[in-house]
Amino acid sequence: MGIVMGPNQYGKAEVRIVSVNRDTPRHTIKDLTVSTSLRGDLDAVHLAGDNSKCLPTDTQKNTIYAFAKEAPIGEIESFALRLGRHFVSTAEGISGARILIDEYSWERIPVGGTGHDHSFVRGTDEKRTTAVTIDGDKEYVVSGLRDLVVLKSTGSEFWGYPKDKYTTLAETRDRILATAVTARWRYLHTDVDWAKSFESIRATMLEAFATTHSLALQQSLYEMGKAALEKHPEVAEVRLSLPNKHHFVVDLSFCGLDNDNEVFYAADRPYGLIEGVVTRDDVEEAPRAWYSLPEF
Amino acid sequence: MGIVMGPNQYGKAEVRIVSVNRDTPRHTIKDLTVSTSLRGDLDAVHLAGDNSKCLPTDTQKNTIYAFAKEAPIGEIESFALRLGRHFVSTAEGISGARILIDEYSWERIPVGGTGHDHSFVRGTDEKRTTAVTIDGDKEYVVSGLRDLVVLKSTGSEFWGYPKDKYTTLAETRDRILATAVTARWRYLHTDVDWAKSFESIRATMLEAFATTHSLALQQSLYEMGKAALEKHPEVAEVRLSLPNKHHFVVDLSFCGLDNDNEVFYAADRPYGLIEGVVTRDDVEEAPRAWYSLPEF
Amino acid sequence: MGIVMGPNQYGKAEVRIVSVNRDTPRHTIKDLTVSTSLRGDLDAVHLAGDNSKCLPTDTQKNTIYAFAKEAPIGEIESFALRLGRHFVSTAEGISGARILIDEYSWERIPVGGTGHDHSFVRGTDEKRTTAVTIDGDKEYVVSGLRDLVVLKSTGSEFWGYPKDKYTTLAETRDRILATAVTARWRYLHTDVDWAKSFESIRATMLEAFATTHSLALQQSLYEMGKAALEKHPEVAEVRLSLPNKHHFVVDLSFCGLDNDNEVFYAADRPYGLIEGVVTRDDVEEAPRAWYSLPEF
Amino acid sequence: MGIVMGPNQYGKAEVRIVSVNRDTPRHTIKDLTVSTSLRGDLDAVHLAGDNSKCLPTDTQKNTIYAFAKEAPIGEIESFALRLGRHFVSTAEGISGARILIDEYSWERIPVGGTGHDHSFVRGTDEKRTTAVTIDGDKEYVVSGLRDLVVLKSTGSEFWGYPKDKYTTLAETRDRILATAVTARWRYLHTDVDWAKSFESIRATMLEAFATTHSLALQQSLYEMGKAALEKHPEVAEVRLSLPNKHHFVVDLSFCGLDNDNEVFYAADRPYGLIEGVVTRDDVEEAPRAWYSLPEF
Repeated sequence: MGIVMGPNQYGKAEVRIVSVNRDTPRHTIKDLTVSTSLRGDLDAVHLAGDNSKCLPTDTQKNTIYAFAKEAPIGEIESFALRLGRHFVSTAEGISGARILIDEYSWERIPVGGTGHDHSFVRGTDEKRTTAVTIDGDKEYVVSGLRDLVVLKSTGSEFWGYPKDKYTTLAETRDRILATAVTARWRYLHTDVDWAKSFESIRATMLEAFATTHSLALQQSLYEMGKAALEKHPEVAEVRLSLPNKHHFVVDLSFCGLDNDNEVFYAADRPYGLIEGVVTRDDVEEAPRAWYSLPEF
Repeated sequence: MGIVMGPNQYGKAEVRIVSVNRDTPRHTIKDLTVSTSLRGDLDAVHLAGDNSKCLPTDTQKNTIYAFAKEAPIGEIESFALRLGRHFVSTAEGISGARILIDEYSWERIPVGGTGHDHSFVRGTDEKRTTAVTIDGDKEYVVSGLRDLVVLKSTGSEFWGYPKDKYTTLAETRDRILATAVTARWRYLHTDVDWAKSFESIRATMLEAFATTHSLALQQSLYEMGKAALEKHPEVAEVRLSLPNKHHFVVDLSFCGLDNDNEVFYAADRPYGLIEGVVTRDDVEEAPRAWYSLPEF
Repeated sequence: MGIVMGPNQYGKAEVRIVSVNRDTPRHTIKDLTVSTSLRGDLDAVHLAGDNSKCLPTDTQKNTIYAFAKEAPIGEIESFALRLGRHFVSTAEGISGARILIDEYSWERIPVGGTGHDHSFVRGTDEKRTTAVTIDGDKEYVVSGLRDLVVLKSTGSEFWGYPKDKYTTLAETRDRILATAVTARWRYLHTDVDWAKSFESIRATMLEAFATTHSLALQQSLYEMGKAALEKHPEVAEVRLSLPNKHHFVVDLSFCGLDNDNEVFYAADRPYGLIEGVVTRDDVEEAPRAWYSLPEF
Repeated sequence: MGIVMGPNQYGKAEVRIVSVNRDTPRHTIKDLTVSTSLRGDLDAVHLAGDNSKCLPTDTQKNTIYAFAKEAPIGEIESFALRLGRHFVSTAEGISGARILIDEYSWERIPVGGTGHDHSFVRGTDEKRTTAVTIDGDKEYVVSGLRDLVVLKSTGSEFWGYPKDKYTTLAETRDRILATAVTARWRYLHTDVDWAKSFESIRATMLEAFATTHSLALQQSLYEMGKAALEKHPEVAEVRLSLPNKHHFVVDLSFCGLDNDNEVFYAADRPYGLIEGVVTRDDVEEAPRAWYSLPEF
């Protein structure tokens, strides 16, 4: 009976790396934020400040930069796997790693009708993400995206909900539905064309959001997850976190004007928050893949 | 074999509420951000957009405001328990709830040497937090704090770590140690003087940070958690997330100056991130209490 | 000899408005943040709390929403002028107004190869802006853009600068040049095709950034402003605020690797900040147009 | 008739510096963010990329760190004057400088009833600020504070304002008044006890906010500025920017509850914004002191 260390991890968070491929005059760039965490036999550092098995977070940062030079970064899933496998196979006492990567998009600046060779403009605020977990000899890849903001100006209803003494909301057959998609999906294995799979899942979920006549944001969530799973046998489950970014119809009756879903107040807070997992019913759960990720 | 809904929850996030007690001319205020989430028999809303068991997030928001008037808010743990029990006991199909509350501090404005009756100034950016989970007939209270920024200008070392080909960090016997504490602790029951317990745990952890001669931030983390557990039998475990807010000694040799740990560059990114659980070894684990909290 | 009120203004800041044009099933949306400020004979409200000439900021907000319904919003410059003229011509004691608008971009979600009728995805974080000032019978329109992040992976040098005892920077003939453009330009009159002028100025400045072989970010700034002025006789002056978003080449010699401008650390702070005005030498200055704008 | 460079400046923004005084075992710390900008004969760098008079922003950064070691930082006004005078007197072609400093507060961690020697906890989010301008042989000091959040739970009214067709706001004899104070005041000379003057102006403005029975936030603004000027002959003028952080009484009639100014919704956006200058009527204006500061 006593006090002990439970689960723990440590690493370097938010290493900003930009890599330029200069093999030809037509450059390409990769812009990433990488976070690493190591897990393992770390009681001594906690209980006694003994760092003999504590590979410094500074070294982890250096490793990220060196790896970006030793071989092309490639897709973020591949880079995360390279990093994680390196730490687990080389650092004494380290049996697990979690690598998080966010990727930012850039496009070429148009000059005279074509994209410039070495001048770029940042794309949207959307990030492509991956969370790779190495746990002994097991590897998990959970990829996704964040800050994909979407809006339907019609094709969304909300009615038929329970009423109690605290209810004031009016039912509606037509409203704006808007959200900032955070999605993460778990791959069943690592033999995947990461870029192609990402683009296809993203396009599929966007299309499902657009074409679902929505009776509840939950329904849109399910349809987005289901569509992604149906087209992508390499994916076990999809987790979605969808803030309901409320757009309230402004009551303009004070000055004698109708407002037939034309003028809206876009609210910041509070917001609805709809979170859920869409999954295959015949796959094993993988709690280690999700452990300590902020998503539901 | 098919596609199904897995775990899910929905609710209203970040409801900003300020409550004034005007019973006497010497007012007091409570300033909270409250988020509610409901869990239960919610397949119909996801699969068919059937909202008959979907208590609107707008109603959840109204309930928060009404509850603040129906009885004094009291401590955030009590308020969260009141809200969670209400939803689970009254909403059809709802068997679980997660209530998150952040509390902001205010102090009286000094006027003529004493605090003013009804004029206040915001305290630090630190928040007192709670995450209450109702799961059927089980109740879990996980309280904590966020954004408690602390710094030691000496009394911190870092050496004796493994070196590899990517190592450049120099060992040091004296450095600044700074972090922004996020702490959460799980209570073993709900028969607690919440305010008193919070103040004591906070003071205990601050004191442990200050008095630990630190060989690693991990050691400080463990000492903070251990000190809190030793003094507070009502607590089962403490989880800490400690960014290592690096302060680098500026090399001033370029202009012929020594810099004996006097002038530092305070870096934003990247940062070390040390996370861990300090726990009693004779308590049951409670994964439901922690499910979907962002902390490790 | 005494204490008096000097210049002042008041208004409603950051009114979030989304307007949907539903004239056909193929909707269009406008997404704006509007801030209004009124100026005039406002001594009484400051000195005595006499609000008889203080049109409430709540009414200003309502006016924004009502105006969006009474007629199409159109271009942000037109909308700002409509609002400003209304306040100055109708509110007793009000002789001046400043209207600020930020516009966010949205694109159609692609479905089956074409853009969906009523489903949209947010564009980049770049905002189109305007700052309209009414000052008695004078009107000033200063339009611009913010958060346009651009990067050149080569074609930028920095050398030939003065050295002193505090110099450590090495000269370079090849570096990454990156910035987040904030630009504002003052129009000479209001008889402008606002949308066309905006698109052309933006494209012109982007192209100048891309094609200027840069010896200093100041040179890029000047070339961007000059190119805009040369093509746009309707513009009197361009003001640019360009943070130098440093990308430092990572020294990988610690592990025996060269790094020929391939792997960079993208720093957040500190950053260079280059600010300047490019102007015609034969136009009158207009300090009232710029008063209280944050730009240099 | 042509295109020319107008006013411009360049420098290093947001240099984060923490300085520890270790003269005795009872350490003290200074935590600053410093930004420098230089002005002068800079046409060549803009027009031709000729950097021969462009002291690099990297050197400016190095100078900040070196100066913090060469002599104690002291008060931020003194440090800014030292830096500005250095640049203007030593850099060829540089005739002006603007130095901005924000200072963050730290307190000692209490251990056993007394403050620890070398362990600190961050204070509130409020910053003490200065903006020092050197313009040839003229020097201007504009000091202030930011993010001082204050609230009165009563003692504030708003009525008697003009009504038009867009008016919906109800008059009130009792409301919450809350704001985040940004204040800047211009000193008449530099022979000032900076710390003492700052503390006194801050306390005076806080007290004025607390004790003014407010009929309009404009009235509170004026009383705050006036009180500061009356007590501080060293100050020429005070500029205040006061967002009206709306706290709306929640209408609880839906569930049969009164709400006598007890339960409020704290809104983020939009907000009122009240800005103004309180000044002596017998001092010279100093537009160079304020040029390019974001405040009204």
